[in-house]
Amino acid sequence: MADPWRLSYDRFRPDEERLREALCTLGNGYLATRGAAPEPGSGGYRGSYLAGCYDRLTSTVAGSRTADESMVNVTDWLPWSYSVDGGGWFDLSEVTILSYRQELDLRCGVLTRQLRYRDTAGRTSTVVQRRLVDMADPHRAASSVTLHAEDWSGAVRLRSGLDASVTNSGVDRYAELAGRHLRVLSLAADEDGVLVADTATVQSQVRVVTAATHELLGAPVDRWRAVRDGDRIWWQVDTDLAAGGELTVDKTVTYFTSRDRAICEPREAATGAARRAGGFDAMLPGHVLAWRQLWDGIRTTFGGPPERLRAVRLHTFHLLQTLSPHTADLDVGVPARGLSGEAYRGHVFWDELFVVPTLTAWLPEVARAVLQYRYRRLPAARTAAAGAGHVGAMFPWQSGSDGREQSPTTHLNPRSGRWVDDHSHLAHHVGLAVAFNVWQYHRATGDREFLYRQGAEILVEVARFFASLARYDRSQDRYVIRGVVGPDEFHTRYPGSDRPGIDNNTYTNVMTAWVLRRAGDLLAELPEAPRIELSERLGLGTHEPSRWEQVMRRLAVPMLDNGLLAQFEGYQDLAELDWADYRTRYGNIQRLDRILEAEGGTSTATGRRSRPTC
Amino acid sequence: MADPWRLSYDRFRPDEERLREALCTLGNGYLATRGAAPEPGSGGYRGSYLAGCYDRLTSTVAGSRTADESMVNVTDWLPWSYSVDGGGWFDLSEVTILSYRQELDLRCGVLTRQLRYRDTAGRTSTVVQRRLVDMADPHRAASSVTLHAEDWSGAVRLRSGLDASVTNSGVDRYAELAGRHLRVLSLAADEDGVLVADTATVQSQVRVVTAATHELLGAPVDRWRAVRDGDRIWWQVDTDLAAGGELTVDKTVTYFTSRDRAICEPREAATGAARRAGGFDAMLPGHVLAWRQLWDGIRTTFGGPPERLRAVRLHTFHLLQTLSPHTADLDVGVPARGLSGEAYRGHVFWDELFVVPTLTAWLPEVARAVLQYRYRRLPAARTAAAGAGHVGAMFPWQSGSDGREQSPTTHLNPRSGRWVDDHSHLAHHVGLAVAFNVWQYHRATGDREFLYRQGAEILVEVARFFASLARYDRSQDRYVIRGVVGPDEFHTRYPGSDRPGIDNNTYTNVMTAWVLRRAGDLLAELPEAPRIELSERLGLGTHEPSRWEQVMRRLAVPMLDNGLLAQFEGYQDLAELDWADYRTRYGNIQRLDRILEAEGGTSTATGRRSRPTC
Repeated sequence: MADPWRLSYDRFRPDEERLREALCTLGNGYLATRGAAPEPGSGGYRGSYLAGCYDRLTSTVAGSRTADESMVNVTDWLPWSYSVDGGGWFDLSEVTILSYRQELDLRCGVLTRQLRYRDTAGRTSTVVQRRLVDMADPHRAASSVTLHAEDWSGAVRLRSGLDASVTNSGVDRYAELAGRHLRVLSLAADEDGVLVADTATVQSQVRVVTAATHELLGAPVDRWRAVRDGDRIWWQVDTDLAAGGELTVDKTVTYFTSRDRAICEPREAATGAARRAGGFDAMLPGHVLAWRQLWDGIRTTFGGPPERLRAVRLHTFHLLQTLSPHTADLDVGVPARGLSGEAYRGHVFWDELFVVPTLTAWLPEVARAVLQYRYRRLPAARTAAAGAGHVGAMFPWQSGSDGREQSPTTHLNPRSGRWVDDHSHLAHHVGLAVAFNVWQYHRATGDREFLYRQGAEILVEVARFFASLARYDRSQDRYVIRGVVGPDEFHTRYPGSDRPGIDNNTYTNVMTAWVLRRAGDLLAELPEAPRIELSERLGLGTHEPSRWEQVMRRLAVPMLDNGLLAQFEGYQDLAELDWADYRTRYGNIQRLDRILEAEGGTSTATGRRSRPTC
Repeated sequence: MADPWRLSYDRFRPDEERLREALCTLGNGYLATRGAAPEPGSGGYRGSYLAGCYDRLTSTVAGSRTADESMVNVTDWLPWSYSVDGGGWFDLSEVTILSYRQELDLRCGVLTRQLRYRDTAGRTSTVVQRRLVDMADPHRAASSVTLHAEDWSGAVRLRSGLDASVTNSGVDRYAELAGRHLRVLSLAADEDGVLVADTATVQSQVRVVTAATHELLGAPVDRWRAVRDGDRIWWQVDTDLAAGGELTVDKTVTYFTSRDRAICEPREAATGAARRAGGFDAMLPGHVLAWRQLWDGIRTTFGGPPERLRAVRLHTFHLLQTLSPHTADLDVGVPARGLSGEAYRGHVFWDELFVVPTLTAWLPEVARAVLQYRYRRLPAARTAAAGAGHVGAMFPWQSGSDGREQSPTTHLNPRSGRWVDDHSHLAHHVGLAVAFNVWQYHRATGDREFLYRQGAEILVEVARFFASLARYDRSQDRYVIRGVVGPDEFHTRYPGSDRPGIDNNTYTNVMTAWVLRRAGDLLAELPEAPRIELSERLGLGTHEPSRWEQVMRRLAVPMLDNGLLAQFEGYQDLAELDWADYRTRYGNIQRLDRILEAEGGTSTATGRRSRPTC
């Protein structure tokens, strides 16, 4: 029977490693590290990410230049290995695994990995690795790696370090994009053994400093050496290990950036915090307490099979690792894949629609922070709306550092080798989701201060945008919204049409009516002082609320003959696909958009978000 | 009769210029610029400051090395001048002033300066300067400078630019300290005329980018030139001016730093914002509206003479310029001199005690932000308490970027030439002020979220510190607090004693009792869940509240024989100074501490905050 607080694996499966790493990511809402192995040879992908740390690089793909902003894979703090009697470094791919156990403790946020193996020299060893990303102090993480010599003795050289040579290369389909986002400013070891990787992102110039302290347990450290190896730096010791004995390396790391608050300078902050932190066991109690207190506030117990309970907890665990109380003081949104990898480039889509209700109940200050991420980007959304010939605020489908649209405008279909237009920026319903969340957050919390100063402004500006997007169609005496992409992300234009987008997407139109109604309600409900203040600041004309009302009451919603809602106008006229045939011919049809485009160059579907598994 | 919304001057007084500049500072809670003249020769001191932008430099003063963190004087955006027919640049010190009018409009936040003068060539001209630091968008400022040729015509070369050669040199007594906090990364002019000063602070490495756009009104601009001149860059045009004609240069500037939110990179943000901003007249309505909305929320009308009303408004104006709604999203405290100059090095003392009650009523989110500045520095205050052998949190008397104690430990007396110990870090009552504000903020706003997550933690940690500072004195059956400096800042040790500080300062002890009582009340009032969470997180023993109660009830408060409270223990035994004699001998005895130390080397007073006037 599954333990509902534990995700565990009993065999090493290289083909599953990347998925496991994503699922076993540890994070605290500021820093996250994929559940990758610290030793070489696992075939996995190490990645550590800082919430909101983006960098934009220009790449040339198939002759076309494209600039992409990505959440940066920062200095890797995991590397660890050892050698015996002057031999090669331990590499997982070169040994015979005798037993394997990997376990993610969801209650405590601790990842444990235990492997017993025989190396090519016939030595049997066990390695136990424990790891945490501190939920009590968001700048810290720690690991403890124990090497146990079962049937051998020898001179052991241990090393553990920081790798700043990392690139963003975790997603195969981004392989041709520029991925070197870190520039190494310096790698150094202080006299007392603190390793420092001082780096900066290439374009956004965010300084990212990682510091590490080490302790060797089980043997005296006569001397340690710092070994630099390209853009890696190692803390290295030589010692002896007798049969039956063991050596433990405790590593504590800290991450600070130039955007952090309450620091003088990130390098000083990182080294100081690393010196004060203590090792894994010193850090563990505060971390476990912080996790327990988080779980105490959240009810995840219900009837049903333990597998289902575990699944809910795993999702909750990842939500809390992406958006923790520490996130409340940052300037970040809800990235589509959390902080567990590089898919979607760490961009912020409309996923807050799904998590803000939960956050509002559990961690209202974090829900507010996610809405404030949008508020700070309201000027950018206004600029975007004006650029598109509209008023109000047009939030981007993909948002990153500064709130400009990060969706690509073209998209290389690897099946056809063709560049196709990407119309995903027409998924304007992201703004409706933001407005919806503003309203719900206020309704649930009663936080008037947020509503008066920021929330109302967002809601009104989104309402304005959709009111200006809606056009009156005399023929049907209805307001219509043309040229959008709806939540299905697949239907991006009509067959044979050059005009991007589809018309009167039901979800978009119904939500538009809802937002227009709420914006009107809000103005009616606001006390006089904030209402006047808001109206003056936004230059809100008295005719605007009545236009919202008018549009709201007469927005087109396409219906099928059988009385059901159509997904969008003309949906019923589209030819049905022979699904069985496509499944037979292609197997995986998740990226049907690419298949169709490759077949005939006339797909209606481009730019859809796929769902990568690592 | 004084206009209660206007501060005005009708004569140019070089000896008063620095005081006027401080009083005429314009700011918006993010950026502030002293009311200094844009043209050369005024004898004033130009300074622009960004809230919370500090840098630490090491200086050698009288053979002793000292590291000081200062609020940085950033790129000066004011410079403007002109020349006629190839002559020298206009310099105020070289002309005969015929009339002068300077006016600060407190209601609108606009500074106007009008001067009519005759130059050495006998030309009569009038210059009108208007300036604002945008209260609607904290990154922006604008000026408009008009040159009117009364009785001459000629070829005019106008220039207006950015000066990144600035240093911190506004305070005479810091003259020997290192003052060059800015490093110029690049000075450039984009093709469309945007000037950019890209700089970084030397040690804290905060990138500060200033961008400027210019427009010439009154004459066609055939071409402009960018002229670099050391660490200055000028936008320069040549044109003709006829008698009776005028030329206006509009300048718009933007400031962005690497610590700003919702940006990709500060240079891109600054140049983009400058291009979008429009000139002075375009920016004015939003700025004036923002000020009107601020004033609308604040009642400053009362009976009494208009001078008194104006004084209250001037103070309020400066408070709002230092701590505006824009400050709520920053990480800054309340600097002792606001953002009007370099005195106190921009450090944060206990002045929030005086302004938080006002802010709580008017702008509660700003009051909370000021308390959050302290909350983020609670770890530093804990480290400081532990370093001093105590528990809890010891907030620093002078706080800057990272919350460590910024008070100097020695102090050069210019009168005696001697280095004397500076004990001002013993002014621990700053922590009592923080705790007091936490309590009052919650009582006034009912903000439970802040109280449960942050406020309670501050209050308990301050209570712990003072409970550990208090020692039981069996002889009087009282708890005593020895070795502090009280609010008067003058009495820092007893005559003839080597032990720093004085004992049982009445203010400190009474406020300690108050804080201990409130900490106990708070724990009793907190709902069970946050109380348990807090207690677990802080490892709060059940004995602690009872000890607080015990100390609170029996804290020594020294009384005089006449039943009045003594300022501190032994106050009544100090010799009375012959005040008249000192006033006669020294004139200004504001820095009596230095006089006494110079006379006999045994002053009780060191490290006191003086009150500079510019």
